[in-house]
Amino acid sequence: MLLRLIYINIINESVDALEEHFIERLSKLVSIPSVSCTASNRPDVFRVADVIYQEMIKLGIDAEKRHPGTQTIDGEQIDLPPVLFGKYGYDKNKKTVLIYGDPASISDGWRTDPWKLVYCKETDRLYGRGATDDKGPLIGWLNAIEAFQKANIEIPVNLVFCFEGMEESGSVGLYELIQEEADKYFSNVDCICISDNYWLGTKKPCLSYGLRGIVCYTITITGPPADLHSGIFGGITYEPMTDLIYLLSSLVKPNGSILIPGIMDKVQPLTPEEKALYENISISMEEIEHSLGSKTLIYDNTRCTLMHRWRYPSLSIHGIEGAYSSPGIKTVIPSRVSGKVSIRLVPDMDCEEVTVLVKKHLESVFATLGSKNVLSVEPNKGAKAWLSPVNHWNYRAASKAIEKIYGVAPDFTREGGSIPVVLTMESCLKKNVLLLPMGRGDDGPHSINEKLDRSNYVQGIKLFGTYLCELAAV
Amino acid sequence: MLLRLIYINIINESVDALEEHFIERLSKLVSIPSVSCTASNRPDVFRVADVIYQEMIKLGIDAEKRHPGTQTIDGEQIDLPPVLFGKYGYDKNKKTVLIYGDPASISDGWRTDPWKLVYCKETDRLYGRGATDDKGPLIGWLNAIEAFQKANIEIPVNLVFCFEGMEESGSVGLYELIQEEADKYFSNVDCICISDNYWLGTKKPCLSYGLRGIVCYTITITGPPADLHSGIFGGITYEPMTDLIYLLSSLVKPNGSILIPGIMDKVQPLTPEEKALYENISISMEEIEHSLGSKTLIYDNTRCTLMHRWRYPSLSIHGIEGAYSSPGIKTVIPSRVSGKVSIRLVPDMDCEEVTVLVKKHLESVFATLGSKNVLSVEPNKGAKAWLSPVNHWNYRAASKAIEKIYGVAPDFTREGGSIPVVLTMESCLKKNVLLLPMGRGDDGPHSINEKLDRSNYVQGIKLFGTYLCELAAV
Repeated sequence: MLLRLIYINIINESVDALEEHFIERLSKLVSIPSVSCTASNRPDVFRVADVIYQEMIKLGIDAEKRHPGTQTIDGEQIDLPPVLFGKYGYDKNKKTVLIYGDPASISDGWRTDPWKLVYCKETDRLYGRGATDDKGPLIGWLNAIEAFQKANIEIPVNLVFCFEGMEESGSVGLYELIQEEADKYFSNVDCICISDNYWLGTKKPCLSYGLRGIVCYTITITGPPADLHSGIFGGITYEPMTDLIYLLSSLVKPNGSILIPGIMDKVQPLTPEEKALYENISISMEEIEHSLGSKTLIYDNTRCTLMHRWRYPSLSIHGIEGAYSSPGIKTVIPSRVSGKVSIRLVPDMDCEEVTVLVKKHLESVFATLGSKNVLSVEPNKGAKAWLSPVNHWNYRAASKAIEKIYGVAPDFTREGGSIPVVLTMESCLKKNVLLLPMGRGDDGPHSINEKLDRSNYVQGIKLFGTYLCELAAV
Repeated sequence: MLLRLIYINIINESVDALEEHFIERLSKLVSIPSVSCTASNRPDVFRVADVIYQEMIKLGIDAEKRHPGTQTIDGEQIDLPPVLFGKYGYDKNKKTVLIYGDPASISDGWRTDPWKLVYCKETDRLYGRGATDDKGPLIGWLNAIEAFQKANIEIPVNLVFCFEGMEESGSVGLYELIQEEADKYFSNVDCICISDNYWLGTKKPCLSYGLRGIVCYTITITGPPADLHSGIFGGITYEPMTDLIYLLSSLVKPNGSILIPGIMDKVQPLTPEEKALYENISISMEEIEHSLGSKTLIYDNTRCTLMHRWRYPSLSIHGIEGAYSSPGIKTVIPSRVSGKVSIRLVPDMDCEEVTVLVKKHLESVFATLGSKNVLSVEPNKGAKAWLSPVNHWNYRAASKAIEKIYGVAPDFTREGGSIPVVLTMESCLKKNVLLLPMGRGDDGPHSINEKLDRSNYVQGIKLFGTYLCELAAV
């Protein structure tokens, strides 16, 4: 215990000594425009993989590039970027932790050069695309290794790496690769750590133990074979748009209550233990309103608000395909319209069961309309919710590390959205997954002016190192 | 009476003798790609005006080109095409009839060359863009004059012409021109005839005495300042799309009933006389279904169907701006969405009164939602309904002419849509307007394969000549 504390102190001093070098290293990564969703930037995704590969080799990691195949993008068949695998340490007496990271971005709307890491002294922030999502955290792990090395301290766990370039574009090819290597490359993995999310707010670190799932539906009403003149046919024919609007209005109330019978039956009841996790979470209504940008929250307290973000399902109507959607007025009756709807799932909601309920509800409401149009309901994609036991040793180790670095016990949080790679890792490897964020809730990943606070970067590197030490001890 | 019959016979024989010449003349007009809504085709709209102007001069019409000014289109400021005015006959003892026509088209989706008039012998049809809307009817009037001239018979009425190139693009500039010339150029006009609509079906000619009006609304719900991630904000914020869908569903039932309180109060009650006009109308449910292209009509008989097309209001939802409208799924919560709605108006509904009712209804429904978003309702454009007394001498003359040419009394029909120029003519000149169609209900104006039956063209020319004779006599 005492020795561990001394080691951790030494490593952290090593991090402080290397700070400028670590900033330089992140700067180098951010300068590569690795956008994964366009064909023209694909060579840059290869470049960023190569730079990280070289860094891994330099640190003594047994790194290798795996090639998941090809994909068609912008009409071109192009190679998927390599997934970087790596191993560091093979001691059978140590735990083995799998570290995941993704160093490529999506395209977004920056007004300044997003491919240059800019340090703003006044705010102590590092601005740049990918700074917080996910180049900073990824390179943070390599920095932590270097800190151990420079301090001449042996890392008390074995490390396995999986860095992919396609996370922001659906992790194409990753599931198959992980599945195939589950009993081979990844056979010794004891736990998994992913640093690809954020603190809830801006002041207190957190550990995340849950994600909502999602299932999407395309609800289509088909009427006549072509769009109609509303002067000629308005009032005499069943209009697909009117039917669809009626169906969509039967799904959810403006206050967020889902109206589909049976949909709430599988939602896990709230236990006193779970409720207790919400008691001291460090976030105010003002912070949530600030992130929303308006005062249009449904609930007037943070507990209800967070529960409805994390542990209750929600239903959103995203749009309608086939109807007029431009500025101005076009008075045509669309012949075929499709409503796009998603439901955020929570434990223990099952995609297939939800789909049965959605279809049954829509079909029975549609039957009451007496319309002669045709209804179809197509589920589009599904990912179930994810929930990790917060008393797992992986979480305990991370919690202790946070207390050491930040002097405060972490909030235990969930996320309202999905991170598909979490499900991929857990379902393929059957090991505990921990979400250990480096950045803050206002970092703005995928947004203009994405940033990572310099202190979060530096403390995050220390946190990673400390976590590895605590892992060995739990 | 007898003399009139003899004259009419002679004129009709003259039409038959000139048939090939008349087809050639239409062919020449159709070959000019006069599309009024694109800047690149604007020179062709000038060309078509010039060709018609030359034809008018050749026939001895005192024709002149009026220039209504400029407009901005495709980002360019360009000249509006000339409106052709013309006078033929100045006999103070004769009635004066104003003939309106529009020789330019809108762009559409033809798969074959639409700018070539093709005669199909099997179907006896003339195919070509503008054949029926409105080059055929327009040139039909000039043909009728030529038939009189070749038969050496004096036209028993004075003629005034107004041919414009912008009808399909909102008649830009026409209202001002007509308004300005009402007491000058048009001061002697006794009645107006517009041949810019169609038989109800394909077998029986008709006279049209009514049009529905229209008023459009943009219903906007404004929430947060930017689109939201539905994982993060789904379930905790009032979603503009959910509010809007609820409001739209409160406007109209799938069976077409408008749910806005008070909206039906101003609709004219059905009188026995009006009801009688619906008794013998020559159209079957199969024909209406055929024009609709599907079996999704609300009513099971033609009388109810036609009444709901012509004499009752309807409400259509055309689309939503600001929400996702492409194929596939995008799980974003749109921050600001606008529903596009139109109401077809009938006598005696007033645009302003309807707008008051729509706003009041939407605001009161919105208040029940408890949403913190913001609602706004903007009326976009309005045109009142039009109804002409069918016992006016203008209609009696046309009815007699139809009996002479087709051997059958016409159906008295209305249209469900609007023809703004009808309102312009009536409100500026304060004279009776007659809609006297040349083509059939299946001509497909604005559609691919627009056609005009050759027999309708030839009989239509005879009808125009006969109408002028009957006008002089009533």
